[in-house]
Amino acid sequence: MQSTSLNEEFRIFAGTANPKLAGMIADKLDVQLGACNIDRYPDGEVAVQLLESVRRKEVFLIQPTSPLVNDHLIELLALADACRRSAAARITAIVPYFGYARADKRLGGRKPITGRMAADLLEAVGIAQLVTIDLHSPQIEGFFYGPVDTLTAVPTLCQELRGHLPPDIVVVSPDAGRVQLAAHYAQWLSAPVIVLHKRRKDGTQTEVTHVVGDVSGRACLIVDDMISTGGTVAESVRALLAAGARSEMFVAATHGLLLPGARCKLQHPAVREVFITDTVCSQEVPWPGLHVTSIAPLIAGALERFLADGSLRDLYQENARRPATNTATKRYGTGILS
Amino acid sequence: MQSTSLNEEFRIFAGTANPKLAGMIADKLDVQLGACNIDRYPDGEVAVQLLESVRRKEVFLIQPTSPLVNDHLIELLALADACRRSAAARITAIVPYFGYARADKRLGGRKPITGRMAADLLEAVGIAQLVTIDLHSPQIEGFFYGPVDTLTAVPTLCQELRGHLPPDIVVVSPDAGRVQLAAHYAQWLSAPVIVLHKRRKDGTQTEVTHVVGDVSGRACLIVDDMISTGGTVAESVRALLAAGARSEMFVAATHGLLLPGARCKLQHPAVREVFITDTVCSQEVPWPGLHVTSIAPLIAGALERFLADGSLRDLYQENARRPATNTATKRYGTGILS
Amino acid sequence: MQSTSLNEEFRIFAGTANPKLAGMIADKLDVQLGACNIDRYPDGEVAVQLLESVRRKEVFLIQPTSPLVNDHLIELLALADACRRSAAARITAIVPYFGYARADKRLGGRKPITGRMAADLLEAVGIAQLVTIDLHSPQIEGFFYGPVDTLTAVPTLCQELRGHLPPDIVVVSPDAGRVQLAAHYAQWLSAPVIVLHKRRKDGTQTEVTHVVGDVSGRACLIVDDMISTGGTVAESVRALLAAGARSEMFVAATHGLLLPGARCKLQHPAVREVFITDTVCSQEVPWPGLHVTSIAPLIAGALERFLADGSLRDLYQENARRPATNTATKRYGTGILS
Amino acid sequence: MQSTSLNEEFRIFAGTANPKLAGMIADKLDVQLGACNIDRYPDGEVAVQLLESVRRKEVFLIQPTSPLVNDHLIELLALADACRRSAAARITAIVPYFGYARADKRLGGRKPITGRMAADLLEAVGIAQLVTIDLHSPQIEGFFYGPVDTLTAVPTLCQELRGHLPPDIVVVSPDAGRVQLAAHYAQWLSAPVIVLHKRRKDGTQTEVTHVVGDVSGRACLIVDDMISTGGTVAESVRALLAAGARSEMFVAATHGLLLPGARCKLQHPAVREVFITDTVCSQEVPWPGLHVTSIAPLIAGALERFLADGSLRDLYQENARRPATNTATKRYGTGILS
Amino acid sequence: MQSTSLNEEFRIFAGTANPKLAGMIADKLDVQLGACNIDRYPDGEVAVQLLESVRRKEVFLIQPTSPLVNDHLIELLALADACRRSAAARITAIVPYFGYARADKRLGGRKPITGRMAADLLEAVGIAQLVTIDLHSPQIEGFFYGPVDTLTAVPTLCQELRGHLPPDIVVVSPDAGRVQLAAHYAQWLSAPVIVLHKRRKDGTQTEVTHVVGDVSGRACLIVDDMISTGGTVAESVRALLAAGARSEMFVAATHGLLLPGARCKLQHPAVREVFITDTVCSQEVPWPGLHVTSIAPLIAGALERFLADGSLRDLYQENARRPATNTATKRYGTGILS
Amino acid sequence: MQSTSLNEEFRIFAGTANPKLAGMIADKLDVQLGACNIDRYPDGEVAVQLLESVRRKEVFLIQPTSPLVNDHLIELLALADACRRSAAARITAIVPYFGYARADKRLGGRKPITGRMAADLLEAVGIAQLVTIDLHSPQIEGFFYGPVDTLTAVPTLCQELRGHLPPDIVVVSPDAGRVQLAAHYAQWLSAPVIVLHKRRKDGTQTEVTHVVGDVSGRACLIVDDMISTGGTVAESVRALLAAGARSEMFVAATHGLLLPGARCKLQHPAVREVFITDTVCSQEVPWPGLHVTSIAPLIAGALERFLADGSLRDLYQENARRPATNTATKRYGTGILS
Repeated sequence: MQSTSLNEEFRIFAGTANPKLAGMIADKLDVQLGACNIDRYPDGEVAVQLLESVRRKEVFLIQPTSPLVNDHLIELLALADACRRSAAARITAIVPYFGYARADKRLGGRKPITGRMAADLLEAVGIAQLVTIDLHSPQIEGFFYGPVDTLTAVPTLCQELRGHLPPDIVVVSPDAGRVQLAAHYAQWLSAPVIVLHKRRKDGTQTEVTHVVGDVSGRACLIVDDMISTGGTVAESVRALLAAGARSEMFVAATHGLLLPGARCKLQHPAVREVFITDTVCSQEVPWPGLHVTSIAPLIAGALERFLADGSLRDLYQENARRPATNTATKRYGTGILS
Repeated sequence: MQSTSLNEEFRIFAGTANPKLAGMIADKLDVQLGACNIDRYPDGEVAVQLLESVRRKEVFLIQPTSPLVNDHLIELLALADACRRSAAARITAIVPYFGYARADKRLGGRKPITGRMAADLLEAVGIAQLVTIDLHSPQIEGFFYGPVDTLTAVPTLCQELRGHLPPDIVVVSPDAGRVQLAAHYAQWLSAPVIVLHKRRKDGTQTEVTHVVGDVSGRACLIVDDMISTGGTVAESVRALLAAGARSEMFVAATHGLLLPGARCKLQHPAVREVFITDTVCSQEVPWPGLHVTSIAPLIAGALERFLADGSLRDLYQENARRPATNTATKRYGTGILS
Repeated sequence: MQSTSLNEEFRIFAGTANPKLAGMIADKLDVQLGACNIDRYPDGEVAVQLLESVRRKEVFLIQPTSPLVNDHLIELLALADACRRSAAARITAIVPYFGYARADKRLGGRKPITGRMAADLLEAVGIAQLVTIDLHSPQIEGFFYGPVDTLTAVPTLCQELRGHLPPDIVVVSPDAGRVQLAAHYAQWLSAPVIVLHKRRKDGTQTEVTHVVGDVSGRACLIVDDMISTGGTVAESVRALLAAGARSEMFVAATHGLLLPGARCKLQHPAVREVFITDTVCSQEVPWPGLHVTSIAPLIAGALERFLADGSLRDLYQENARRPATNTATKRYGTGILS
Repeated sequence: MQSTSLNEEFRIFAGTANPKLAGMIADKLDVQLGACNIDRYPDGEVAVQLLESVRRKEVFLIQPTSPLVNDHLIELLALADACRRSAAARITAIVPYFGYARADKRLGGRKPITGRMAADLLEAVGIAQLVTIDLHSPQIEGFFYGPVDTLTAVPTLCQELRGHLPPDIVVVSPDAGRVQLAAHYAQWLSAPVIVLHKRRKDGTQTEVTHVVGDVSGRACLIVDDMISTGGTVAESVRALLAAGARSEMFVAATHGLLLPGARCKLQHPAVREVFITDTVCSQEVPWPGLHVTSIAPLIAGALERFLADGSLRDLYQENARRPATNTATKRYGTGILS
Repeated sequence: MQSTSLNEEFRIFAGTANPKLAGMIADKLDVQLGACNIDRYPDGEVAVQLLESVRRKEVFLIQPTSPLVNDHLIELLALADACRRSAAARITAIVPYFGYARADKRLGGRKPITGRMAADLLEAVGIAQLVTIDLHSPQIEGFFYGPVDTLTAVPTLCQELRGHLPPDIVVVSPDAGRVQLAAHYAQWLSAPVIVLHKRRKDGTQTEVTHVVGDVSGRACLIVDDMISTGGTVAESVRALLAAGARSEMFVAATHGLLLPGARCKLQHPAVREVFITDTVCSQEVPWPGLHVTSIAPLIAGALERFLADGSLRDLYQENARRPATNTATKRYGTGILS
Repeated sequence: MQSTSLNEEFRIFAGTANPKLAGMIADKLDVQLGACNIDRYPDGEVAVQLLESVRRKEVFLIQPTSPLVNDHLIELLALADACRRSAAARITAIVPYFGYARADKRLGGRKPITGRMAADLLEAVGIAQLVTIDLHSPQIEGFFYGPVDTLTAVPTLCQELRGHLPPDIVVVSPDAGRVQLAAHYAQWLSAPVIVLHKRRKDGTQTEVTHVVGDVSGRACLIVDDMISTGGTVAESVRALLAAGARSEMFVAATHGLLLPGARCKLQHPAVREVFITDTVCSQEVPWPGLHVTSIAPLIAGALERFLADGSLRDLYQENARRPATNTATKRYGTGILS
């Protein structure tokens, strides 16, 4: 792939939520990030100005909607509005971490489905396609009318994990909703899956009631799509130890939000190492034992394939050993990537 | 509620998928079903003609999109088109069983999200609101832009179940995806929850690998949102017996599709009784041990509240003992009904 | 036109309504049909999976919405949904026979305009353009917001007819609504037009009341856009014979639905031969005297011109002698094809 | 019906195309026309200001889009924009004569379908419903997504005609496209139908080639949906006389556009009387023998039924003897009015 | 107006941007604010739950999009999403201060028009109508498709000002863009208008170059739509003093954003008193000389008229002396309120 | 730029409002105007037929919506409808003069915002982009959802003006709303700005109350975006002379509508020369002293840049000396062109 020809075809602009990741993606593609000013007026209103032409060019906007989620979301919308009004040919939002994903249902409450609403807002400003990573639930793709490419960081994280994990590791899903994610890790790591059953006692506290599978004397890899306050990890550690697991725990998650206080919870004596990616700029200071693997090669690889009008089929085989067979089921099966 | 005044305000039309249920709902509301002809031309095209005016009236269309799903779906759309063109004030689709609900994600495959597509089609013809029962996943509400009222048949079924279940019953979720449903049953029945962990071996076969919780010597109530081929039930029975459960099984599900062959699988010696509702006209001949409870009072109760512009809050308290507390969680909590 | 370069630019997928026609179109274009699985779940729900990438490619979906019309329509919609979500650049539906076309008006009845509704559904899933053949009424194009290319099979059928018709043939329009179609045949065959005036006696029976023009001793070519039950043909034959026509009748129609029973009605002793195209897979077993001419070259020719961004102006001149002048009228005139 | 209560519920505004008709409709309903200024700036731009509140009121806008069609169309759109922005609850356009109706197809030409475009424009400004009279083709209803009530002036005109026609009258359709309209007249007048077959020789001249049915010595009522230049009538008269009709002709049409020169063509010695309605302000000076029957009672009657949320079923039975039976056909049948 | 009947018809919910104002509006209407929880998850995502039914009720959402503008905007959108999904009949946003109003043009820059974008977002979630106060430019109404009621605080502020101003006051427009606003004040205060001509030297500094009109020895009332940093006021004071104005200045503005530092700029020795309304919760601590007049009676008055389906014509005459004549011009004229 | 390659890529069609300008633009681009028939039926309805294929081609439609504004607007819409239905790839409207631009606000009146409505109509028929010149207010861009390129004729006019103006010229804004335009002229001409303050006395008369800046003995260039009736110019001349200006006036405006009577008002003894462009075909006969500069090179230059997917940044530097610096302000700044 020649960078010069690519450079003529598209522009990548970065919002302010994760400029470092955007820069790394651009580097991988051997292009410059599009020049633009993103600023705030004294009253906090977002000010955007593109400093180069996007006329009839394909545009990629890189912006995780991580905290400060509303600011980052509006900024992304304003960037898209600027691109559309400047006659961009097509606008794709690259949202490595998709905020409001957990607000994906109402369960009879008089609540918004803010995840769908975020999709509506993106489509309202003319964003034609979404690229994201490890969505909280796979149904969220259906909140969009347009195409969504949900990449997964699991192969990337497993590549990193392999050198650190003991051979008898088990993959732990911290609740019933993460079983599919845990199975994905287990597939790449050739390890068994353990499932915790969690029951919320009330609005703030959860209690793990069952550990499904035998963990006695085993080292554990607790996996999740995101680490927010660290509460889920802490509770899982407690339950696993109580069930006889070896005091040698590892944690892996795609999105390391690491809200204030998370570090403290993650630095439990049993937790050896924590692996996250750089989808978001986390608010905690890094510490020894925290491994941050960049997702930039993955996203850059996807963009290369998009720009070549190609399939993502071989995206994960480049720098990760892919498991032998992928048995697509009739209705539920994970499939071949588009 | 006076039926005469109601009768002036709205019209209920029934498609051909479940006219009996529609008739019962109308009876409960003490109104007549709207007169209309629904027919097929010799080439199979749907022909619809309303025989009474819907001008500026609120219209409810009752049609589960059960098999023959495509015929029933197009018929529903054509009914709505007829109502819209005849100047109906507002069209609500009452779809007790929402077909294509399981096609709610792509998982990287180049597939449609047919559940979202069905929502798009309903909205394309002007259906403003959906009333449905026990959706396969709660995120499907987010496939709609407009309001969705998802009722639940669990209290109705539990009311029926109470007289038949032994006191030491456990509620069994046949896989990780039904835990929330099983918990709902357990809440109404004051019984513990057992979870089976299922792994699909390939496109057609599943294998239950774990029984979470102690079932030895206990009678079991296997619950699911729907019974389609009966395969899930059969597999669950096998696993529960293998785990030492008493050979006294009960099955409950909202939607009794009962595809050809299902009866055979459900008439296992260990299965004492099967409880379903009448959301769909099932294709199997009924048999002793199959209890069909009508959902008509529930839907009629919801419509009464709609027409009085009221809340559904007390919908389930009418003829069912509701559990004491409903601890709404901050993010995930089942809430107060709208 | 080089097939290899074409092959890079677009993909053609076939629904299950007429895979043979789709295959012939692909052959003519010297490309392979796109690989995809189209299946049904046990409950009859449509399952679609594309087996090759359509990312940023132009996609053509070939599917007549012939019986089973609702299944074929939903299948087409699901294919389009899959293509859109897989980031196809543009989706064109090739619907050789457009079901629900006769449901194009309400005439004061409280009915749907199902033809318009079908257009709405196609547009709701992102189909950008329609290619179809010999629509029942030309106004149906106006049911679509996007471009519609209505091709005609008349030149193709006339090419085939020329070798079989006696020289004194007259072209018969079976009712006032087909006069324009009959005139088109007459133009290609240089024959006069005869019009039958049909009056429906009631909902099921029609009565031919007038034969406009002199048919005594003449052989007749009865033309129509479609043959469904064969009733119109049978009635026309009776009226023409009563008016003194020679017992040497021919029948030509674009769409040979041939519903069960049609063969019986068409095998009247006076009817020598019946000419149809392969727009639909008819449900009758073929018989001697039934000529099926393939429309595949016509559609392939149109696609070639589309892909070369060209006009359809010379589409019919390739393998058919076109009449000398085409006198466009100011308001009603048949025009130059786009 | 009490005018005062009606007056609180809705407002009727008249554009400038036919204020006299609007005034008569308001009189029939015993209400005042809504006060508004409609003016032109010196540069010809339309200026509209409503002088009374329409907040949350139902609004009816009366404006035929007769010549000057573009001015009248934009004026109607601007009125609707003003009403929508002034928070009207619902806007219905009453367009007795729907301009651009004849531009309802493309026939392969690279032309607009201006009839559909006009529908798109009306819907683009928020007009929710259309009321119109004797559309040129019934498919035009399908150009609208929203409800269309197409009234017919035939009973009104027949009521007027009865006193003037000789008993042996035949109803003449001037071409194949008006057969349904002629049959409607014939039904009300209990007279036979005669059909002329017209063939256009070129863009400007037509030639009548056949008179279907026996007219020898009979008086004729030539009917059409509109009289524009009068050319069709003149040609029909010539053909009927040539076929032996009595020199006692009558003409009836809903829309009397009567473009300059039409009077001259209609004042043929054989033409005794011409009957039109007041859907448009015609541009010709009236002459003896021209009867203009007001359509205001018909429209007022429809509005009364709308406002009472009722059916139009009995609309034509008020002041006109309706034929005994209305045999609805399965697919094509004229039906019961909505 | 009876509060009980009103209370049945609608619900007012308040976002968190200005709950005090919302409470005062509810008090004026003698109703309770709708009960709802608005909260933030630990990651900053907005959580909304309505605690009472809005089914088929009219809903008013009160939320100025003042700083923190993005949080307040998303919160408003989420409230609307919750109401729409809970089947509210109609949602009106009352946005006393409309953030992003100044981003209403691009001037050739590759910028968003964020004011239009905000309108798009409001309409994307189903907000049907906007009520706002003293928009930065009147064209912003045209950014909305639906109805916008722009109220003005000028009469309210003038009522307050009358007791404080010396008789020889002049009304000062701080730049050419505020002339119309200043004229409005002058009309209510019967005072002359002075216009300052401002030229921006660069992005942060402005320079007043001309004082149009005679200010020598006069007291001045500087008016603006909003006070943000206070910079415009400070610069105007300087210019007016330099032009010989008396050191007795007053300031009036509808929206008192009063960003940090504004108080300091406004407490110039020549500035006697500052008058603002409570459209926003300003971030500065109040000080002597700052008068905050509540806009709640104005908004409540408008809502009363809305709910009575009435005109706003007499809105300002209730508690303020309105100038005698309001000469509407043909094109530009301020008009009668809708 | 090679014309042949360009010719393959796009088509330019001209409406009938200004065919001469369209021809000059085509000449500049070295292409032929697209062949099409635009005609009127006898009843005044617009008839459009494209005579060459636009399939998958980019289309530019050139049509100022100058008087007869409604005819020209509908014609433009019909052209776009024809192009869309003929499968044009993308439709850009080049509307050098945008009619209804002054109807951009409601000011509390129950009026349409006809400028926004015109934008809605253009978007309703599928026009994807607008190119226009010197809009009446910059906010009008926000009436469109799609991209708008507002070019300015000021550099072109200034190039022409330079040879005619005396060195001591001042640029006069005839009212507060044109200050920004006057500043733009002043920037190109290195001259000071004078502002007139105008007050409308009533609907038809205005009165200039102040002349801001010193004009004594100076020659004046009165600038405006358009000259309609000439009234504003006449009033400005009167006021400037009264303020002591030299009786040597020049007038410059982009759009020379020159309604009947305008010539008379402009031929005041003090007015030496009048400069306009050819955006519209004015209705007045030209006179000595009226200079019409063609805008065709500017539009052609923009189109060249569009077709090369490029920026307009250097558009004005080709044949006009551009001022040295363009200090973009943070919020209000004129920017770099897209």
